[in-house]
Amino acid sequence: MNSAAFLSWSSQALGRVEAALANWVPADAPAGLGEAMRYSVLDGGKRLRALLVLAAADAAGAKQHPGGEEAALRAACAVELIHAYSLVHDDMPCMDNDILRRGKPTVHVKFGEAQAMLAGDAMQALAFDVLTPDEKPQGRGGVDGRLQAALCRLLARASGQAGMAGGQAIDLASVGSSLDELTLRDMHHRKTGALLRCSVQMGAACGGLQPDSQVWSALTDFGDAIGLAFQIVDDVLDATQESDKLGKTAGKDADANKPTYVSLLGLEGARAESAELLDRALQALARSHLGQDATAKLAALAQRIVHRDY
Amino acid sequence: MNSAAFLSWSSQALGRVEAALANWVPADAPAGLGEAMRYSVLDGGKRLRALLVLAAADAAGAKQHPGGEEAALRAACAVELIHAYSLVHDDMPCMDNDILRRGKPTVHVKFGEAQAMLAGDAMQALAFDVLTPDEKPQGRGGVDGRLQAALCRLLARASGQAGMAGGQAIDLASVGSSLDELTLRDMHHRKTGALLRCSVQMGAACGGLQPDSQVWSALTDFGDAIGLAFQIVDDVLDATQESDKLGKTAGKDADANKPTYVSLLGLEGARAESAELLDRALQALARSHLGQDATAKLAALAQRIVHRDY
Repeated sequence: MNSAAFLSWSSQALGRVEAALANWVPADAPAGLGEAMRYSVLDGGKRLRALLVLAAADAAGAKQHPGGEEAALRAACAVELIHAYSLVHDDMPCMDNDILRRGKPTVHVKFGEAQAMLAGDAMQALAFDVLTPDEKPQGRGGVDGRLQAALCRLLARASGQAGMAGGQAIDLASVGSSLDELTLRDMHHRKTGALLRCSVQMGAACGGLQPDSQVWSALTDFGDAIGLAFQIVDDVLDATQESDKLGKTAGKDADANKPTYVSLLGLEGARAESAELLDRALQALARSHLGQDATAKLAALAQRIVHRDY
Repeated sequence: MNSAAFLSWSSQALGRVEAALANWVPADAPAGLGEAMRYSVLDGGKRLRALLVLAAADAAGAKQHPGGEEAALRAACAVELIHAYSLVHDDMPCMDNDILRRGKPTVHVKFGEAQAMLAGDAMQALAFDVLTPDEKPQGRGGVDGRLQAALCRLLARASGQAGMAGGQAIDLASVGSSLDELTLRDMHHRKTGALLRCSVQMGAACGGLQPDSQVWSALTDFGDAIGLAFQIVDDVLDATQESDKLGKTAGKDADANKPTYVSLLGLEGARAESAELLDRALQALARSHLGQDATAKLAALAQRIVHRDY
């Protein structure tokens, strides 16, 4: 897939995601809550997780699966809602105490801590709401209940104690301590990896793939590899880029004496590892037997994750 | 249903709920997160929402519906997880800043604010995780995916901006202001009412009832009436009981100059309204045509809600 074709697909996909989010995140939620939710989730972010859902759904044949395309759009928005809520809570004073996110004041700075906490809570609920539209009578389209349940199952497990929230807890406990490489990997496997892997798996489910299939397993390996690569590149950028380029406060982890892949492997070691993970991700796609055309967007996203500079 | 029969049923039901929660809320979640989750959700609370789910499921015939009983137990635990997470977040310094809950230090007092926020977040995810167990091959039991999706749909809508979180936002904005009765009702309809109504509806879904049926509509009216009654009685108790009896700080809303039903209707007016709502709830059960035996537990729960003294 050449760069122009990828850009054309991704800008069209992003347009659909932004429009759907703008539609589903309510402007009329009471007492300023809707405003805080929309501030935190609309108009910002690379939407990497959403693109992974949509690319994996295409690869798995969601267009040919009844309700698959609508389900994929819903899953793409749901995972962005989970990601956005986690950033809102993570930025709060009791956690990372950050005042800048995507170049704008963080939600608690703009709306107050209580509203930020509530907006995060409501966005997590909204993610599962978006995944479970009213079922339509048979033959009338819409997303089948069993697929809805499969998507909720994947997202709930990736978000909770075994996934993202558990990773946050390890992160929290690690400040000022010297994590070994194994614990650092476990933390990131949960904290960022679980949601990225889940994005790929939700896309796969939208194409009707089942968790016990070989294709599923290959796509999961792909998701694991890019999940880890994403975090390593994040640490590299955090150590080498300026805040205004990143849209968030750079060098924070090192300042807080938090262990990172850079502090553990060195800058060159971290870069080498991310390159190796990209190879591993591409090999997993080849192993899926979905064909090079079908997986071209996933491959392009993996390249982009590793070679990004913000 | 006589009092002994109700007590026998409810203590057996509570035993099942406590055992299931102890099983599903992980002890091994990383870095103290599991401990904080278990502290906040196990061994405490009246489990009113769980009992409503189970009583409604019995009334709707969940025992005869494939997977209905397991689904009802899962729904009972899921709604308790949502309720527990909301209390943890609500008690935090940026919200109500409460240090006492069910006679014990609140979660942030015991585990710190960051862990409390994470534990709440993880419990919300766990609620949807509990609702979506792996599907078993047909004929092997377990909960059907369409029922799982229906339960997620109900719980997500009741928890989010249109329900509980939205009610919290109104509550937050109301401190020190003079809410009129309409806004106060709207707030409670969302803040506590939505989850109580949802408990009844989830039970109904476990019996195979559909949202467009007359029985569903009658049970929803029942849930609405007891939801409002619950809050009015809460306000009455808050104004008349001591903290050690309630297991939480009494008189806080009045102290914070928050509007309550007692400040709005007076003590006698509030008591009269709760009695009227009990009548309305019992009439709704009669209208459901499920029969007096089938709805006896729901009726007993309604009585208990209105006549409780803590």
